[in-house]
Order: sequence, then C-alpha cells, then structure tokens
Amino acid sequence: MGMCIDALQAKIRKKKNPTVLGLDLQMDLIPQSVLEAAVAEHGKTIKAMAEAYLACGQKLLVTLAEIVPAVKLNTAFFEVLGADGISVMQKLCAQAKSLGYYVILETMRTDLEAAASLQAQTYLGDQSCFAEKVPGLYEADALCIGAFTGSDGIKPYLPYCKEKSKNIFILTKTPNKSSREVQDLISGDRVIYTVMMDLIMRWSVDVFAKSGYSQLGAVIGATHPQVLREMRDKYDRLFFLVTGYGVSGGMAKDVQHAFDKFGHGAVVEASRYIIGAWQNAETDGSDFAERACAAALKMKQDISKYVTVI
Amino acid sequence: MGMCIDALQAKIRKKKNPTVLGLDLQMDLIPQSVLEAAVAEHGKTIKAMAEAYLACGQKLLVTLAEIVPAVKLNTAFFEVLGADGISVMQKLCAQAKSLGYYVILETMRTDLEAAASLQAQTYLGDQSCFAEKVPGLYEADALCIGAFTGSDGIKPYLPYCKEKSKNIFILTKTPNKSSREVQDLISGDRVIYTVMMDLIMRWSVDVFAKSGYSQLGAVIGATHPQVLREMRDKYDRLFFLVTGYGVSGGMAKDVQHAFDKFGHGAVVEASRYIIGAWQNAETDGSDFAERACAAALKMKQDISKYVTVI
Repeated sequence: MGMCIDALQAKIRKKKNPTVLGLDLQMDLIPQSVLEAAVAEHGKTIKAMAEAYLACGQKLLVTLAEIVPAVKLNTAFFEVLGADGISVMQKLCAQAKSLGYYVILETMRTDLEAAASLQAQTYLGDQSCFAEKVPGLYEADALCIGAFTGSDGIKPYLPYCKEKSKNIFILTKTPNKSSREVQDLISGDRVIYTVMMDLIMRWSVDVFAKSGYSQLGAVIGATHPQVLREMRDKYDRLFFLVTGYGVSGGMAKDVQHAFDKFGHGAVVEASRYIIGAWQNAETDGSDFAERACAAALKMKQDISKYVTVI
Repeated sequence: MGMCIDALQAKIRKKKNPTVLGLDLQMDLIPQSVLEAAVAEHGKTIKAMAEAYLACGQKLLVTLAEIVPAVKLNTAFFEVLGADGISVMQKLCAQAKSLGYYVILETMRTDLEAAASLQAQTYLGDQSCFAEKVPGLYEADALCIGAFTGSDGIKPYLPYCKEKSKNIFILTKTPNKSSREVQDLISGDRVIYTVMMDLIMRWSVDVFAKSGYSQLGAVIGATHPQVLREMRDKYDRLFFLVTGYGVSGGMAKDVQHAFDKFGHGAVVEASRYIIGAWQNAETDGSDFAERACAAALKMKQDISKYVTVI
C-alpha cells in the first residue's frame, strides 16, 4: 500500500505549513545579477538562460527548504528552453528530492493509454535502457494531469500509485475564470467537476493510503472558496492540490475551506507570489531568495490565521 | 489571415491522400538492425536509444514523403528519453518541415494562460533569447491540445493562428472506449463533445482561412463513425484530425464520415498501423521503411474506396 500522500501530510505537519512552492521560472522573474553571471559564462545564449534558471531555482530550493514542504515544477516552463531546459528541470527535481521536498511535476497532459504509460514511466518511474532498469529521469512523487479521456488515460498511473507510492493530482476545477465554460456545466444532478471527483473516487478503490486518503488527489483553484468548501465536505478521502494562491486571486481566507478540522487534506500552491516577491518589493532582485522566503513565511502565517495543522 | 489549414488541404489534394503519419516511436517498433548500429556507436545508453529513434524516424520521413502529406509527433514519446529525446524530436521536426510535411506536435496539454503562452511560443513560435528573437525550437504547423480549462487556455494560441498561420486541434471526442465517461455526458441539450465543438467555433470567429475552414480544428477518434458523421454535418467549417486509425479499431469504412462530399475537411492519423507494419509482416525489420510505405499505400487505397479527394 502506498504511503506517499501520507508522507506529504507528514512533511506538512512537520513544517506546520501546507504550501507548495510553484517553481514556474520565467525570464522576467530572474534577477539581473543571476542573468549577468550566466551570460558572463555562456554568452547571450539559450544555454545561459537555462543556467540562470538553474541558479535561480537552486537558490530558491535551498533557501525555502526549511519552510516549505513541497515543490511543483510545471514542465511547460522548462520545455521553452528545449533540451537545455529539460536538463535543468531534471537537476532541479533531483535537488528538490535531496533537500527533502515532496516533488510534484505538472505535465497537464490528458492522454490515451500508450502515452499515459510513457508519461508515468518518464516522470514517476525508472528509466528502461535496452531492457535494463536504470535510475529514472525524475522519479517525482506526484504528477498533475487531466482526465478528459476518462479511465484509459488514468489506469496506467495506478500501478505507480499502488506499488511505488506515487500520487496523481487530477484537474477538477481550475482557478481560471473560464474554467466554468466546461467544468461548471451540469449533467444530470452533477456539475462536471464533481463528475471528475466521482471518477477520482472510483479510480481510488485500490489505492487508499493508511491515513484513509487516496493516492489520487484533485486540483482545485484557490479562487473558488465555495467549491473548496463543498468538495471538502463531500470528498473527505481526497487530498486537494489548491492552485493559484496570491497573484491569481485566491488568498488565505479562501483556501481555508480546502482543509478539514485537523488542518489536513490539502496543500496550497503559490508561484509568482513567492518567487516574484522581489518585484513587488521593487528591489533589484539581488535579494530574490530572501524576498521569496519572506513571502513564503507571510503565506504560512496568513493561512495559519484560518487553519491550524495538528 | 492564416493560410495554414488551407495549406494542409492543398498538400492532401496534391498527394490525393488525407493521412497523417503518427511518428510515435517506441523501442519495440525499432528494428534490431537500427538498434545495433546505434549501440555500436554509443554503447547501450540512452543516447543510443535516442540515435536509434532518430535514424528510424528519419528513414520513415524520407521514405514516406512522396505519399503522406502530414506527420504528427506526440511529445510523450520523446520525453521518455529526456533531453536526448527532446533533441531528436527537434531534429525530426526540422527534417519533416524541410521534406514538405505539414507538422503537427501533440502535447495533449490543458493549460492556464501563462503556460499556454509558453507552449505556443515553444512549439509554434520563435525563440526569445535575451530579448532577441531567434529561430524557434520547432515552428510546427499545428498543435494538438485539450480545452478543459476553457477560453483562458486557448486564447494565447489565437495570435499564432491569426498572424503566423498556425493551427490548433482541440480534443473533442477521443478514440478510446472510456472517452464516454466525460465526453459523452449530456448537459442541457448538448453532449460534452459538442460543447467542445461549439467552443471551437466560438474561438474561431477571427481565424477563418480563405477556404472557410477555421484555423482551429477538432480531434475526433476514428472509432466513432456516427460521431464523425454528425459532426461533419453540423460543423462544416471545422477541420477534423481523426486519430486512432487501424490498430485502435477505426478503419476506412469508419473514417469516411469525417469528409465532406469533396473529400475535404479531414485528415486521418495512423501510427502503429504504418510504422509497426513490419511486425505484422513478421520480418526482421530490416525492411521497416518499405513495409511502412506499403501500409501507408494500403491505407490510402482503402480510404480512397470511400473518399475521393477532389
């Protein structure tokens, strides 16, 4: 039986902080000093951009390791730098693991069976090299994916949840405004996002952890407090990955509804709110890691006004 | 105004063949001789696997260039080889373009705005390197994505459709059996996949090509002939990317319904049916490209029994 969702909860309890660092690096978020150092070594090249991402990401991971229990890397932010970006993502993932973070990779894919099998292997499993098993590229703890294709696209992940203690977070009600266009449609007596929740429960049958939580969780936007409240009441065995904290509009007051009375069952992701904090402070960015740290502490404190993790 | 969906139709007419080569390379599809050559040079390494993918893919692209107008690369099949796989995907994409193929990249992502903007840039656009525009990593003709997040995840692609003549194919009714779990639900008087079709029409307002077809198309499975028929009747301005031909169950008889009376408006993708043909022929694979060619010609002939492209 898997333990991973319980390991996440344990990490949250240890740090008394249910937050995820969203390491969505972009050029505009990387301070001038980091860029200049990379350019000095590699010129104005894609390689230099990748090295700047790496330096910035590494500093953030090291600085926040004592405060934040989990990190999420959205693959799109690294794909933009091609093969160099992929190498950086691998290095950051490895470092995050070695620093003790629970590592979520966000592929946002909605696959059919063959591609889903490959994705599970790529991001959660071992690598296969001429029929020999070699260390995986990432061996992340969790993936964040869509389920518009239904069971066929999810089943390939289940052995990883069951036998390798991995987790999957499935898109249910995303934080953006237009999420209502599809996710809020009503079918029979259910809203589409509850159809997704029901499917997650169905796929969970064989993958409940000791705590009672499923190894499969749901992604719900921080911008939908009412949805968070209703889903928390109704699906007490599903862990929530709450996305879009801060900049996208959801704040501590909103995300409190994602937690049960013990302060369990959810983790809240913030990206620009943390890693872009130096920009709001209008510094030159040389203190970007300290500003990120301050923002993460403020977020922890703000959430703790509403949620006590026991 | 974009021309790209018309360019696809022109390529189809020129070759009298509405098919897409699905270059979903996997180790079990690569002949022993190709693997041995790669191992001789690089040892039993991931690099050797990547080189085998490249050699196999290049041979297929060259051999099929006279017959097949378009190629589709699913990024998952390359991500599994890490940064080496990404380099191979870039090389195959570049070669496909230089051979005159219409190139579709299948990311299958369902994004929010920030990541969608990056994905559009990564796969369809120029690269930005320290504020200088440099050649794009792929500059593909089209992307295949999901739209579960609604307009926010699609809007970033629209300038590429309008100003760069790019196309987007959106997941509507996928070929797998469990597609019914979400896509066949009924909301009001519409099935969810027609909700998607209606959204595609709404997003198309500003991106119709000269032919009248939208630069945004729909992905519909070859396994759903009745859906293809109904959607063809109802959405005569949407181009269909019909997936899952052959091995997944949909055959020529089924996919005929995707076309209008001129044999226009659709393109049919086959992967294992073409690139795995040598396995069905039970050869040692040294003739893999010729077998792929024979399968592609048979597919063309089979479809032509039902559809005449004029």
